[in-house]
Amino acid sequence: MRIDAENIAITVSGRHKGRLTPEDVMVIDVDGEAVGTSAKPSAETLLHTHIYARFPQVGAVLHTHSRAQTLVSKIFEPAGYIVFENYELLKAFSGNATHEIRMQVPVFTNTQDMPALVRKIDAFMDCEPICHGYLIEGHGIYTWGKTMAEARRHLDAFEFLLGCELELLKLRPGIALAARTSVENT
Amino acid sequence: MRIDAENIAITVSGRHKGRLTPEDVMVIDVDGEAVGTSAKPSAETLLHTHIYARFPQVGAVLHTHSRAQTLVSKIFEPAGYIVFENYELLKAFSGNATHEIRMQVPVFTNTQDMPALVRKIDAFMDCEPICHGYLIEGHGIYTWGKTMAEARRHLDAFEFLLGCELELLKLRPGIALAARTSVENT
Amino acid sequence: MRIDAENIAITVSGRHKGRLTPEDVMVIDVDGEAVGTSAKPSAETLLHTHIYARFPQVGAVLHTHSRAQTLVSKIFEPAGYIVFENYELLKAFSGNATHEIRMQVPVFTNTQDMPALVRKIDAFMDCEPICHGYLIEGHGIYTWGKTMAEARRHLDAFEFLLGCELELLKLRPGIALAARTSVENT
Amino acid sequence: MRIDAENIAITVSGRHKGRLTPEDVMVIDVDGEAVGTSAKPSAETLLHTHIYARFPQVGAVLHTHSRAQTLVSKIFEPAGYIVFENYELLKAFSGNATHEIRMQVPVFTNTQDMPALVRKIDAFMDCEPICHGYLIEGHGIYTWGKTMAEARRHLDAFEFLLGCELELLKLRPGIALAARTSVENT
Repeated sequence: MRIDAENIAITVSGRHKGRLTPEDVMVIDVDGEAVGTSAKPSAETLLHTHIYARFPQVGAVLHTHSRAQTLVSKIFEPAGYIVFENYELLKAFSGNATHEIRMQVPVFTNTQDMPALVRKIDAFMDCEPICHGYLIEGHGIYTWGKTMAEARRHLDAFEFLLGCELELLKLRPGIALAARTSVENT
Repeated sequence: MRIDAENIAITVSGRHKGRLTPEDVMVIDVDGEAVGTSAKPSAETLLHTHIYARFPQVGAVLHTHSRAQTLVSKIFEPAGYIVFENYELLKAFSGNATHEIRMQVPVFTNTQDMPALVRKIDAFMDCEPICHGYLIEGHGIYTWGKTMAEARRHLDAFEFLLGCELELLKLRPGIALAARTSVENT
Repeated sequence: MRIDAENIAITVSGRHKGRLTPEDVMVIDVDGEAVGTSAKPSAETLLHTHIYARFPQVGAVLHTHSRAQTLVSKIFEPAGYIVFENYELLKAFSGNATHEIRMQVPVFTNTQDMPALVRKIDAFMDCEPICHGYLIEGHGIYTWGKTMAEARRHLDAFEFLLGCELELLKLRPGIALAARTSVENT
Repeated sequence: MRIDAENIAITVSGRHKGRLTPEDVMVIDVDGEAVGTSAKPSAETLLHTHIYARFPQVGAVLHTHSRAQTLVSKIFEPAGYIVFENYELLKAFSGNATHEIRMQVPVFTNTQDMPALVRKIDAFMDCEPICHGYLIEGHGIYTWGKTMAEARRHLDAFEFLLGCELELLKLRPGIALAARTSVENT
């Protein structure tokens, strides 16, 4: 979470995310250097500071590793993106007043080389300036918002839509089989 | 929820549905106009007032956006309806004393044009007067009851049956494969 | 639950099973007649009294309507039974000291005619005296035990195993596809 | 959990794992004999003492029976193992600093003959000294760690990865169908 123009609050590296206490949160500056502590920030700190630097209006960045995020990121990594279309919930993303939009979420190949990953993310965002989040293969999602409440709303919406797309993919053979049976019965 | 012949309680537009407080509920009249408040009612207010007007005995209308509702509404929108058959739980719907019925639930195409949507719903209900709920594509369900308890029972029953139908569709290829293997082994 | 040689506690018909209070439980005799109350017992009372009469050592009968029970009962109703094999959890059923058994659970067609259903259940149990439960199509399960704790253990085991069998059926096409791909790559 | 060089705490045989109290835990020695109690330890005590003997640094062994563990163990028993690859969460296993590894988890055939099972596990570990857990067919998982916290982290990671692999197997026919449709549309 952005504290002010210079400081960002971030979780300390390696802490149990289900049992966070105030001691598990530390302060870094916009370059990712620890402020007033010898604790080590998250290994993916650069991905956080990159978002805060690129989008001055962003006040909170969230990164999670759910099963739906992991699965979609593995399945759609070869394509490079997943598309959401015809969902009322697209209205949950800041700036959308209608469900009649098509939202493309990029999926980047996982790597331990954070600067290289940031260059790819920047290249994508240069082409697609309206972006509410991205997936990293086999890893999870990054999403953000003007406030923590908005970031959480975006995260909830992504989680719901990713889950729907996985279910639709699972349902696809059954739908095809039902259609074929129905044609044969005609 | 219907308060009296003139007034209906409805959630204020854009409030977090998981954190509703009394301040997130407002009063509207039967035409959907705010009563004694400058708050804006839900964007789909017309769908609520339509149900209260058409069914004078209805005391509560519920609208939700679950994953099962979203998926079924997307998959069955081309057909225009989904059918429930041979479920004991069909008894949960008001007026059903047996499971030996066939229940058809309409699925309407999503649109931002509420009056056009209401005309389609009315046309369906003119043909099928016994209707406990309907789905809107990529969006969710509307269901109702004489009391809030009955509306919630209907919602629970719909959610259960929609989930079962999705699972049956997912299971269909496996069932077909098992049947084929069993025939080949004969 | 059996109270004594003459009396059985059972839920009152039509009560919300998620909100049961002591007022939602009544006493019936072994013939299913209400004792000391004008309340109406569950519509399936005969299925309960049948179990208590047939198995004198049974102290508790449980009947539930889960999604897994509903799905398995619909899918396996044509076959008439489902088989559990090679599960450590088969040890959870009273009398099993090993997982090396094969357990067949009957699935009966749903009907509103309870006496006819009881005759079919009796005919099955005459052939298969060791039976810990049965399914009714589109409806749910009946299971029982010497004590309520044993009945609940049986119900938990059934629920787990029914869920596993459904998942295996869903996984079957993927397993077949993986095997075929693996052969083609050889 | 290892208490000291001589003693191990283990659950008493047959206790309800969801309702454990201090009375459901007993002490055994490194040969699996009860210490200071007439209670009978878990039927799979030998599998626990084997791990403590083989890995002197291990302080806690966990054994669970989840649905994902049961399903994967049944599906992958013929192959003898399951492989995890390209998951960020592989970093959760002690000693892994990167996701760029390939982890093979053995699946052993279930048996009531514990000494025979231990010989198979030993033979596997002689070839693959870095092993954080194994599955037993139709039964569940064994995993361990230097501390209880590490053992729980390993268990959480296994559960997540097993669940992902099952989902990928379920998704496989839908992915293949989507790819085929996409080629036909080209």
